[in-house]
Amino acid sequence: METAEQFIRREPWTAEEKKIAHRAFDEALARHLSAITAKAKQMMAEVVEPSDLWTLEAYLTESRKTVDRTYQFRYSSLLQLFSDLVRDGWLKEADLAGLEPQKITKIKRGAGMFR
Amino acid sequence: METAEQFIRREPWTAEEKKIAHRAFDEALARHLSAITAKAKQMMAEVVEPSDLWTLEAYLTESRKTVDRTYQFRYSSLLQLFSDLVRDGWLKEADLAGLEPQKITKIKRGAGMFR
Repeated sequence: METAEQFIRREPWTAEEKKIAHRAFDEALARHLSAITAKAKQMMAEVVEPSDLWTLEAYLTESRKTVDRTYQFRYSSLLQLFSDLVRDGWLKEADLAGLEPQKITKIKRGAGMFR
Repeated sequence: METAEQFIRREPWTAEEKKIAHRAFDEALARHLSAITAKAKQMMAEVVEPSDLWTLEAYLTESRKTVDRTYQFRYSSLLQLFSDLVRDGWLKEADLAGLEPQKITKIKRGAGMFR
């Protein structure tokens, strides 16, 4: 069983893998932002009381902070990030195609896909 | 010329004036919240980029703080508040009808209506 420290240790990425990783990262971010936008539009459509407006404000603030905190592209922690994104549904297994099998296995294991 | 301190000093309000003051306050608040809601809905309708969403968030945060800071019902500072609300268009002169003429004059003077 790999420790968390071992898991997030620096791994070599080929030029091709780096391209795939950037594309996957951008794709997950776009999906996440698109979902936030859709939910915010839905909430706004249902605003009746001013308090509904402040609920929407709180949702936007929380979402922005989550996005800022989550989407940090660093190779040293990319496998862990991709695991989290797979777990939360923002990254699909297909987005990982082209990464070396060992990385994919680690990402899926981190996402709890083998439990 | 009255000083600001004199202006906001405690003034006697009759029971009838208190009723009018509460109604005017509520009316101004309702107009203000309604305008914020309309503008927010407009901004949401025009959201294209995620950054538009954070612009909307900032607008909501600023609006909530402005409302919280502005709408504090205290007789000791009500004339000043009403002056500000008249100046900013949230309170109409008609809302003041029934207050003693001296109060109305002070409110209008504070709102810069005699300049």
